[in-house]
Amino acid sequence: MTDLPFDSLAALADSAPTLPGFDDGAADAARARQDTLTKPPGSLGRLEELAIFMAGWRGDPRPHVFDAQALVFAGNHGITARGVSPFPPEVTAQMVANFERGGAAINQLCRHAGARLSVVPLELDRPTADFTEAPAMTEAECLDAMRTGAEAVDPKCDVLILGEMGIGNSTVSAALACAVCGGPAVDWVGRGTGADDAGVARKIATVEAGLSRHADATGLAILAALGGREQAAICGAILAARVARIPVLLDGFICTAAAAPLFAADPAFLAHARVAHVSREPGHARLCAAIGQDPLLDLGMALGEGTGAALALSLLRAALECHNGMATFAEAGVAGG
Amino acid sequence: MTDLPFDSLAALADSAPTLPGFDDGAADAARARQDTLTKPPGSLGRLEELAIFMAGWRGDPRPHVFDAQALVFAGNHGITARGVSPFPPEVTAQMVANFERGGAAINQLCRHAGARLSVVPLELDRPTADFTEAPAMTEAECLDAMRTGAEAVDPKCDVLILGEMGIGNSTVSAALACAVCGGPAVDWVGRGTGADDAGVARKIATVEAGLSRHADATGLAILAALGGREQAAICGAILAARVARIPVLLDGFICTAAAAPLFAADPAFLAHARVAHVSREPGHARLCAAIGQDPLLDLGMALGEGTGAALALSLLRAALECHNGMATFAEAGVAGG
Repeated sequence: MTDLPFDSLAALADSAPTLPGFDDGAADAARARQDTLTKPPGSLGRLEELAIFMAGWRGDPRPHVFDAQALVFAGNHGITARGVSPFPPEVTAQMVANFERGGAAINQLCRHAGARLSVVPLELDRPTADFTEAPAMTEAECLDAMRTGAEAVDPKCDVLILGEMGIGNSTVSAALACAVCGGPAVDWVGRGTGADDAGVARKIATVEAGLSRHADATGLAILAALGGREQAAICGAILAARVARIPVLLDGFICTAAAAPLFAADPAFLAHARVAHVSREPGHARLCAAIGQDPLLDLGMALGEGTGAALALSLLRAALECHNGMATFAEAGVAGG
Repeated sequence: MTDLPFDSLAALADSAPTLPGFDDGAADAARARQDTLTKPPGSLGRLEELAIFMAGWRGDPRPHVFDAQALVFAGNHGITARGVSPFPPEVTAQMVANFERGGAAINQLCRHAGARLSVVPLELDRPTADFTEAPAMTEAECLDAMRTGAEAVDPKCDVLILGEMGIGNSTVSAALACAVCGGPAVDWVGRGTGADDAGVARKIATVEAGLSRHADATGLAILAALGGREQAAICGAILAARVARIPVLLDGFICTAAAAPLFAADPAFLAHARVAHVSREPGHARLCAAIGQDPLLDLGMALGEGTGAALALSLLRAALECHNGMATFAEAGVAGG
């Protein structure tokens, strides 16, 4: 479905200049329309920003969301053997079953926001390697997972929301963020699904050991060295969306950290992506600042699954309702300021 | 429709202890349910808080929003003669017509969030008095507007969202906030719909003159001395909603400032109200902090009309979808943490 070079991480890392860019003409036309609508200029704040963002990426001054796709990728992680999560790794598959039966938060929030949800488990019976002992994935495994993520994207959708599930992956995310942004491991580790103080200490030790072992990894090599299959799939989906000019709403800490190796390879890879909400996981605000993202929502959430992204989809729909549905000053016969 | 004593401001101010309270039993049951749902405890953050808030006020551990009512009150203000707004006062009626034709932001956002909108203009051809020269309203005028606001509330709705329109009312709001919370006028004045530096200076001077003239006003007397009819109607609607145990979502700076005299009379009057979003109007965050409110959204908006409250209604609906629709750990066969 795409021309992305999924044959090597190095080729992918170099592909940013070949990808479609933002349509300034469409964005300018959308901005000009915003300034004629019956409201003080700028008074819809980030709703105006979202409408212009959509216009530029869709190449349409009056963009619509007819079809919103939500993808939740799930993977298992070798580092769970190190006691980094209070939940056993079996919960990843149990939650996938819960998604498939419609019982999870993301099911309710996708129904509420009008997104069709697909859940993509990635070899749950074959966890990645423990990254303190070896690369989490070989390059071939990483590329396979990226390709699976890319192939899950419907190129006909208008917006893509991304989420994940994987017991242990807040530790994986801390390692990815630390490798991309630097600083001590403690800056990137939080309680995840509810680790106690001893659990947090194990998470920090695990991240430190992983960073020490893979200190030479840069760019997309970080993804293979420290990431999981769901992180690689997220990267693949982001790239496939870009090829189809589909804006992406990233969920919270895990999704943002998954995308961080793409940012390290070239910040332009994330130009069409917005972080939906800032997680209460403490590393997330730091990571967003480091990659130039200003999350739309701050609701003290830390669930993953794409839950924050689904809420942001509702904001995006609201933004487009205003952009397309409001009367102009001239149409309404309202005196300008 | 209510037993509220709309015969005097003093009697209203004393009525808080007679109003229905929060149902701790229903809220506790909702909290207990949240802790059984398939997510780490607390990981839905403020969505959990919203579900429990609704449960307590509706007296139902599994509350629903079947019917959401949006009320936008509009009024005109004598102080517009002092050059406090870049828009002429005729725009209030023009925007009311725009609301009635469906062309304003609030129309799009109510449709998006599933709220039925009613617009209530309050004697637009009879502005309040210039509060630098006299009380803005007599007690009888204030009570009339409060009664109109109360009568507009449908006691059968499940949630009420409040908004307003009134050229000049960011200056009115600065005066109300300053009278309730204290501090210099400059702390409460912002650019409103787009005042330039000279306009902001006129706003500050107007607030200072109003505060000086009405320095002895306290509690609900502040509302009559400095407020407009739409502010009084908002207070009346808040009280009527409370009688019917209907939670209220207040919009931004203007709505919060309208409610501030109720808070001054008795903070318990606002227990069933939540501020939907923090406006970019600089006094709003300060006012929210002063009255113990933590706004749900921060989107750089400053439009009024109820636009932020409509967006928060969508969050509330999302919260209840999760609360009522998610599977428990036991139902889903997922191992607990």
